[in-house]
Amino acid sequence: MKTIDGGVTAAKGFKASSCQAEIKYKDRTDMAFVYSELPCVCAGTFTSNVVKAACVMWDKKIVESGGPMQAVVINSGIANACTGKEGFDACEATARAAEGALGIPYTSVAVASTGVIGMQLPVDKLVAGVEKMSTTLDGSLLAGTEASKAIMTTDTVNKEIAVSFEIAGKTVTLGGMSKGSGMIHPNMCTMLAFLTTDIAIDKTLLQEAVSDVVKDTFNMITVDGDTSTNDTLLCMANGLAENEKITEKNEDYITFKNALMFVCEYLAKKMAADGEGASKLFEAKVIGAKDKQDARVLSRAIVGSNLSKAAIYGCDANFGRFLCAMGYSGADFDQNDVELYFESAAGRLKVFDKGTPIVFDEDKALEIMKEDTVTVFVNMNEGEAMATAWGCDLTYDYVKINADYRS
Amino acid sequence: MKTIDGGVTAAKGFKASSCQAEIKYKDRTDMAFVYSELPCVCAGTFTSNVVKAACVMWDKKIVESGGPMQAVVINSGIANACTGKEGFDACEATARAAEGALGIPYTSVAVASTGVIGMQLPVDKLVAGVEKMSTTLDGSLLAGTEASKAIMTTDTVNKEIAVSFEIAGKTVTLGGMSKGSGMIHPNMCTMLAFLTTDIAIDKTLLQEAVSDVVKDTFNMITVDGDTSTNDTLLCMANGLAENEKITEKNEDYITFKNALMFVCEYLAKKMAADGEGASKLFEAKVIGAKDKQDARVLSRAIVGSNLSKAAIYGCDANFGRFLCAMGYSGADFDQNDVELYFESAAGRLKVFDKGTPIVFDEDKALEIMKEDTVTVFVNMNEGEAMATAWGCDLTYDYVKINADYRS
Repeated sequence: MKTIDGGVTAAKGFKASSCQAEIKYKDRTDMAFVYSELPCVCAGTFTSNVVKAACVMWDKKIVESGGPMQAVVINSGIANACTGKEGFDACEATARAAEGALGIPYTSVAVASTGVIGMQLPVDKLVAGVEKMSTTLDGSLLAGTEASKAIMTTDTVNKEIAVSFEIAGKTVTLGGMSKGSGMIHPNMCTMLAFLTTDIAIDKTLLQEAVSDVVKDTFNMITVDGDTSTNDTLLCMANGLAENEKITEKNEDYITFKNALMFVCEYLAKKMAADGEGASKLFEAKVIGAKDKQDARVLSRAIVGSNLSKAAIYGCDANFGRFLCAMGYSGADFDQNDVELYFESAAGRLKVFDKGTPIVFDEDKALEIMKEDTVTVFVNMNEGEAMATAWGCDLTYDYVKINADYRS
Repeated sequence: MKTIDGGVTAAKGFKASSCQAEIKYKDRTDMAFVYSELPCVCAGTFTSNVVKAACVMWDKKIVESGGPMQAVVINSGIANACTGKEGFDACEATARAAEGALGIPYTSVAVASTGVIGMQLPVDKLVAGVEKMSTTLDGSLLAGTEASKAIMTTDTVNKEIAVSFEIAGKTVTLGGMSKGSGMIHPNMCTMLAFLTTDIAIDKTLLQEAVSDVVKDTFNMITVDGDTSTNDTLLCMANGLAENEKITEKNEDYITFKNALMFVCEYLAKKMAADGEGASKLFEAKVIGAKDKQDARVLSRAIVGSNLSKAAIYGCDANFGRFLCAMGYSGADFDQNDVELYFESAAGRLKVFDKGTPIVFDEDKALEIMKEDTVTVFVNMNEGEAMATAWGCDLTYDYVKINADYRS
């Protein structure tokens, strides 16, 4: 497997476009279109929030009915959540506009939104945007990059990646894009992520691979503990790589799943590092846990704690806060088994040894904490399970961004 | 029942003292002593954090063994959590110093600590502090107030209250003090709260009343979602009011429990409003919930969300964030039943009506949000249960305080 240039248009048969629809932002693109020349098998994971956006319910229906999916229309600025019947009507109008422009069934058009909750979408602008983007669909890598920019809200960088790998002599490509960067505490998948691939694969296996991979990637990041109403990951596979179709969990399936893991971990970490106001990527690695569930819960609690996040921002090796977060995570353990280290490109320092604090070199600690990526490494010494979670520090800018986001 | 002056020394037979022991702070008092002339029946609730401070385990043992309790020694600056065997030895040394100075059994001396986790207490300073405070114990209201100041960490105001009420012709007094103001998301009781009363009551009933009341008061506040390793509430009752001892859940029990509710709610709200960096008290009232548990979970989720807290700070009536928090709280509901209002001393405004956003007057909303106390009022329209939770806004100062707390 190798990383290649591009994102959602890297795989064969996928095109993208974007436009300035003035949904809410005035001076930038705010709609994106991803389109496959052929109908795709599709998989998706969605927010576990009880309050689901209209578009989440729309897409869930397509995925659960078995597809096919041929296009996704995304807007930034308004989330289309808490919008009642009018919100659903906006989804249908968007899909029908794509049907009208491209002659594909409206039931194969997914929609996704991100932005302010509780505000209605301007349907006329949405429809005009779809019509405009239908005429500019383009298979170039640049078109994919432009799409990844149009879906940003408070993100400071666009996020895309593509990889290619061989399956029995055929080159398969998988690309994706995603956006954050607040209300990030996914509980099915991330805010918005779109993956496109030309692999030929059975729909059930595609969904299984996606659901599995999401647990160790998008579901392991947190920015602020707020699980969005709009979290959506969609993966479309059009089969144009012409590999022998994957219909069982053979070696080809493993190859594909590894590529999927690589792509999803890349996008997830990019989102964590670009969390609202973030100045650092904050990683928690838990090893030696009783079971996988415990390892996940513990590592997520560490990166999710406001006090831990503030300590990371302040470069303060205040390890008690990390132990405290583990203690209220819900996992049961004995503090007398736990070893805790801080590590980064500048080195590694043990600070807590099986119940007892270690007197450590504060200068060394500061040097480690000052790096762009800081890892809290924990050995639970009670089993063999491990997990890694990603978050970011809590800064003045997070408060600034969110005290004045809507207006 | 009426509110009277004072705190932990308001009830008959209670004395207090405080001193500058230089545990960690250099220019203020940092130890407090609360003492009863007679041994007391006692009740307590403690943190649910798996990582419990040494002092929590010490006090739990006293409460669970049935007491009696006659004194509490408290220090601020260092939490005595994650300190291994040395931490336990510090608890015992403190209690034995009180035994030596006052001739009371060391097993009746509770200890409590608050401050940095993972740092050892200087035992010599602790013991010297206990000896000094033993000679200055005083029943005046001022001595109680001074004690409430000595236990503060990042608190900006001390927190105390006292009430008196009649039980069959006898005047009973109940007083208390508490401290916050970060790592506040109690899951048994608050960071530190001490209640003293001269009521004569059976130990089991005292514990039952305390446990019940804590659920609707201290357990309903949150500052940052971080459940401390040190949360401790202790209630001591010495019987000096000479009321007929309460041994069953009669009218006298109800009278006492109502007074306890009043005192605990007062202290809990004071702690929420004085949360680290807070500029406002942020209240969530949920009515019409399916059951009490749902009402509690929903109201706590609202005041616990970073995004909601940042919106409250920014005076932004961004109601979608509050609905979003309810949605991921774990409670199941239909957004099409929900009504949501903002209210404060400046008025009340409905913003969401059973699934549909309401176009509201932004000027009026701003006026409401600008007040010192802002309430999010939610009617679930699915039952008769209700609950109220208290928190505070998320400000630059929270980040500032916690990015540089240890050093």
